[in-house]
Amino acid sequence: MNFCSDNVTGACPEVMEALVAFNQGSAMPYGGDDCTARLPRIFAEIFEHEVAVFPVTTGSAANALALSVLTPPYGAIYCHPQAHIQVDECGAPELLTGGAKLVGIPGEHGRIDGDAFKMALAQAGFGVVHHVQPAALSLTQATEAGTLYSLDQLGSLADLAHQFGLKVHMDGARFANALVSLGCTPAEMTWKAGVDVLSFGATKNGAWAAEAVVFFQPELAGDFEFRRKRAGHLVSKLRFLSAQLQAYLTDGVWLRNARHANAMAQKLAQGLGSLPGAEWVHPPQANELFIELPEPVLQALEQAGFRFYRWLGEDHNQIRLVTAFNTTAADVEHFCQVAKQASQAISVSPGHGANLAT
Amino acid sequence: MNFCSDNVTGACPEVMEALVAFNQGSAMPYGGDDCTARLPRIFAEIFEHEVAVFPVTTGSAANALALSVLTPPYGAIYCHPQAHIQVDECGAPELLTGGAKLVGIPGEHGRIDGDAFKMALAQAGFGVVHHVQPAALSLTQATEAGTLYSLDQLGSLADLAHQFGLKVHMDGARFANALVSLGCTPAEMTWKAGVDVLSFGATKNGAWAAEAVVFFQPELAGDFEFRRKRAGHLVSKLRFLSAQLQAYLTDGVWLRNARHANAMAQKLAQGLGSLPGAEWVHPPQANELFIELPEPVLQALEQAGFRFYRWLGEDHNQIRLVTAFNTTAADVEHFCQVAKQASQAISVSPGHGANLAT
Amino acid sequence: MNFCSDNVTGACPEVMEALVAFNQGSAMPYGGDDCTARLPRIFAEIFEHEVAVFPVTTGSAANALALSVLTPPYGAIYCHPQAHIQVDECGAPELLTGGAKLVGIPGEHGRIDGDAFKMALAQAGFGVVHHVQPAALSLTQATEAGTLYSLDQLGSLADLAHQFGLKVHMDGARFANALVSLGCTPAEMTWKAGVDVLSFGATKNGAWAAEAVVFFQPELAGDFEFRRKRAGHLVSKLRFLSAQLQAYLTDGVWLRNARHANAMAQKLAQGLGSLPGAEWVHPPQANELFIELPEPVLQALEQAGFRFYRWLGEDHNQIRLVTAFNTTAADVEHFCQVAKQASQAISVSPGHGANLAT
Amino acid sequence: MNFCSDNVTGACPEVMEALVAFNQGSAMPYGGDDCTARLPRIFAEIFEHEVAVFPVTTGSAANALALSVLTPPYGAIYCHPQAHIQVDECGAPELLTGGAKLVGIPGEHGRIDGDAFKMALAQAGFGVVHHVQPAALSLTQATEAGTLYSLDQLGSLADLAHQFGLKVHMDGARFANALVSLGCTPAEMTWKAGVDVLSFGATKNGAWAAEAVVFFQPELAGDFEFRRKRAGHLVSKLRFLSAQLQAYLTDGVWLRNARHANAMAQKLAQGLGSLPGAEWVHPPQANELFIELPEPVLQALEQAGFRFYRWLGEDHNQIRLVTAFNTTAADVEHFCQVAKQASQAISVSPGHGANLAT
Repeated sequence: MNFCSDNVTGACPEVMEALVAFNQGSAMPYGGDDCTARLPRIFAEIFEHEVAVFPVTTGSAANALALSVLTPPYGAIYCHPQAHIQVDECGAPELLTGGAKLVGIPGEHGRIDGDAFKMALAQAGFGVVHHVQPAALSLTQATEAGTLYSLDQLGSLADLAHQFGLKVHMDGARFANALVSLGCTPAEMTWKAGVDVLSFGATKNGAWAAEAVVFFQPELAGDFEFRRKRAGHLVSKLRFLSAQLQAYLTDGVWLRNARHANAMAQKLAQGLGSLPGAEWVHPPQANELFIELPEPVLQALEQAGFRFYRWLGEDHNQIRLVTAFNTTAADVEHFCQVAKQASQAISVSPGHGANLAT
Repeated sequence: MNFCSDNVTGACPEVMEALVAFNQGSAMPYGGDDCTARLPRIFAEIFEHEVAVFPVTTGSAANALALSVLTPPYGAIYCHPQAHIQVDECGAPELLTGGAKLVGIPGEHGRIDGDAFKMALAQAGFGVVHHVQPAALSLTQATEAGTLYSLDQLGSLADLAHQFGLKVHMDGARFANALVSLGCTPAEMTWKAGVDVLSFGATKNGAWAAEAVVFFQPELAGDFEFRRKRAGHLVSKLRFLSAQLQAYLTDGVWLRNARHANAMAQKLAQGLGSLPGAEWVHPPQANELFIELPEPVLQALEQAGFRFYRWLGEDHNQIRLVTAFNTTAADVEHFCQVAKQASQAISVSPGHGANLAT
Repeated sequence: MNFCSDNVTGACPEVMEALVAFNQGSAMPYGGDDCTARLPRIFAEIFEHEVAVFPVTTGSAANALALSVLTPPYGAIYCHPQAHIQVDECGAPELLTGGAKLVGIPGEHGRIDGDAFKMALAQAGFGVVHHVQPAALSLTQATEAGTLYSLDQLGSLADLAHQFGLKVHMDGARFANALVSLGCTPAEMTWKAGVDVLSFGATKNGAWAAEAVVFFQPELAGDFEFRRKRAGHLVSKLRFLSAQLQAYLTDGVWLRNARHANAMAQKLAQGLGSLPGAEWVHPPQANELFIELPEPVLQALEQAGFRFYRWLGEDHNQIRLVTAFNTTAADVEHFCQVAKQASQAISVSPGHGANLAT
Repeated sequence: MNFCSDNVTGACPEVMEALVAFNQGSAMPYGGDDCTARLPRIFAEIFEHEVAVFPVTTGSAANALALSVLTPPYGAIYCHPQAHIQVDECGAPELLTGGAKLVGIPGEHGRIDGDAFKMALAQAGFGVVHHVQPAALSLTQATEAGTLYSLDQLGSLADLAHQFGLKVHMDGARFANALVSLGCTPAEMTWKAGVDVLSFGATKNGAWAAEAVVFFQPELAGDFEFRRKRAGHLVSKLRFLSAQLQAYLTDGVWLRNARHANAMAQKLAQGLGSLPGAEWVHPPQANELFIELPEPVLQALEQAGFRFYRWLGEDHNQIRLVTAFNTTAADVEHFCQVAKQASQAISVSPGHGANLAT
């Protein structure tokens, strides 16, 4: 009954079993173990491309460390104004890049607008010593608005970035949710579209703390390992991170988890979208819903014990609902039922009707 | 048969069970869960003092983040030249403090020499704008040489630091091993001796990735939470870190683990110390042994499948042996037996004897 | 004939004489000289307030160092999107603050919009660990658009900042030009309006390399001197910086220089504003003009040897003209005459007239 | 009568005249002027080698910026424990390199010991992720002890550095003083000996604020200009820095100044070295003297109005004396005379003699 985020979950059974299974015997630390050694091949198969891959424990670390090898400390990183790296990481990219500047490029529903990006590049002052130097474009898929870039949109933005010599990073905290919605291959959503480096998220979709930084040109990884270590992000018993990733990627666990989460989101969307007064803030395309509901509906839901965030603060009626691999259909149905009943109660209430009429 | 380090281990059974047990239901992320909320009380009881406590995944993160609230970016942090923060963290303290300088203070067997520290403070140039400003003293207990500071030594160094306005940090990656060797209370080895902030290690002694930064004056923690977040070290599903720490500290698991590891080290020490040609590099006082053994002995051990580090490189015969909570008496006995046999083979070998005689 | 910037000038005679005069005898370095010792009193008299004052050689250093004592490394600094600190300092604020984030607040003609600032503060997430923490507001006076904040506008923005606990910085690279345009006192344009720290520029208005960071609550300066030193900005023969500032502030040199520059700008504005096709980009209020002129006029001016920047690139007809303390009336008249003649040539050209008619 | 430092001086006449002469007309800022454009040729002639050269205002800026292009942020910079970059720059190298570690390599009289350097490299852990990575060797010539490396010593240390892939930086704050003492060419003391980058100091020897960072392989300069700008060290009216350097290097001004300063140091050394109780701390080889003198002698000198630093603090009788381009023979003679008289007074004083006898 907690729709606050997909990180209110634990680990999915397959991941937890792997943690238990790998907790045997001894293994060389800092990635010297067999499981970590297998990761490049596992990722290479899934992405149909040679990769360099580095596990870390958090998405902020994955993003900031990935960016740190793409930009000089006086570089500019272009991202959506609502990107996680810009808004939700307390300056981690600035710290780990040594001071690079994140430049917001606006666009509707969490997607960077191509023309706005083009204009920003035109005015960037390449080679002019007074200006930070364009170094990277960071795209979030699924976006912070719960929407998706189409493959064409990704490709077009990445092309533009490459034309100007920038590298392309993808924040894939909800990579699997985006992937199964688009119905494309991991390759198509990444290197085939022009993505150079991916923050591959597993935590929100079934791991307990496992993200992977994936470089599609291994040589681009450069000094990543030194940067990871000096940020305190080289876990000594690294096999436990690798074990989570391996279990997550085995037998389609990750895709199954994501499909379920997305299906629950669609079910929620169907139940809520038709309510009177309901208004979509963003079109729901993965496992996040941003919707405005009448205040009495929200209060009824809260009183029924459902948890979710009022996205603009407690005095606003815009909410975010997030589903996960373990969201049950029963919970979703219950949620929709409470909302529907509260909604019907409004429409028959003369007092509230009078308010609506003004 | 792996004596390379105490981080070649997995998690101890009690910690692994806790991870499984806590993997139920949903919990608010980023420390908003019940288990994390219990941590301050748990640590307060163990340390007999009010504390602020923050879980992180690595010792380097714990150390560098702890130091980052003790020093300005132009500060000096005094530590042993062989301290982990100086030698083994690839510059993490420099990164997370924004550029503070680590100043090595020598001393035998991994312990900072009090007179050398006094001299360094006398020449530090307090208030002089050209010089980095003394901010913190960092002590490692057990030391990187596998030795211990006595309570008197700790208190005396901490007093000196406090007289000059410095804060005192303890790197307790092997805190439990030191504690059970000294036979004192956690309070006596920390705040009663003058320690202001502790990097409390659990990973090497039974957790899989859990360290806690413990401030003995909670207000000293200051902006620690912002610094942890912006370093990418705020784990979203934080309850799993807290669960490890809770299990580790419940029913004396941590002390039992450490006592076992230390006992195994003593057993090893007894078996090796009397071999001809054996020479202690440092007196073994916790769960690490630094010893020189004749080359044929080392080769016999390596051929028998034992793993350990040649501490000064492959062409030196100084080795480090580390025992852990799951080191078996049988493995230790086997190790000693192989060493003894190899040693006896030397003494009867005329050729080798001839070498010794030159 | 160079209208590119007010930094194409040398030093004004009074400043150059001071440099020569102070080049006698010996003086203690790093500010231990008599001239530097006099600065606080000189500035205190001019600003009618006790101050702490620190000379540096560049405006970027003044700004970034001033901000570095106002913000933690995870802080947010609000500024106009076109502010010098955001656009023209290659990330100096990020470097010297240790990674703080500059958040652009839009507004017309180079001035931050109060409502936009209010909204940004409302959404900033004070105390929320995921977000950079609001620390400072930076206002540029005169703005990068050559316009001015009124005293009321300054006061209102500063009040808002203070209500939320932020400090207020003023980038006064063209402080004198703004001051004489507003016709107010230095006190009124700074601390009486709520400014906490001022980057007081002298270089553009008669010095050769002298800016002063002025704290209106001396205790706010905190560790500024350590920060200046560690940025390499403590000039050893500091008396030469102080001598420039002293000469600049003596006998109203600075005000006379600024009045002249502004008068020349007004003269230019009068000559150009009435030309057919001329369009002001920003209302000229100090010593900078942003204007669009017909392409043939610009080409005529360029061919006549006048230098200025096409502000949006070589293929745009928006230009910036900057006057300085040594701009001559003859040069301005010549400039206007060439422009007028070129303009008249257009209007009698049938071909061009035809274009205009389309 | 001020022997505290060579930075108690003003600018030498030739430099001051250049400042006045260049204060005419207008010039494009930020190095777009003719004088700055001439610098590479001027330096190339003096050093008999193609160079990239960048003026800055302070030695700390020159050193830290030079090093910032030689090392990654997780790099190690080897220097003498008493090097200016280690002791006297308040952490500027750490700031401008983004957190690199300065590793002290001891050696007598301010010179790095070759064997100690070799051992440090052997233990550095190249490629090992836990350790900062060796990046640069920084040599100070003349050293902080007023001594010199011979050309052989320079070459040998630089060779060792190059063998291990390190770059070689020279802190030449007193470059000219060293050069004229060794009697070699600028080329011999730099690139012919293996120096890759030079902080070429002019301030202490006749400029008022002018240092140049000189790269002997221009391509090694890399992104130096961006790093200079973002540190706030790109002076807008750069021609004044360039003018100082040009005047300094024209007609042998710099060599003449240095020869005079060194000659005055030799004269002082002759006058003081033979006094009873005088003891050289370091052999004087350029323009700095480190000597211990009997307390009554020091007090007599202080009472006569001479200024100098007691190098280990006020209660020690080790002093540093520095001569400069404008030190007069008369002042030196006066100094020696006062010292001699005070010395003679001691020897006839029965009380003091008694003390000496104990």
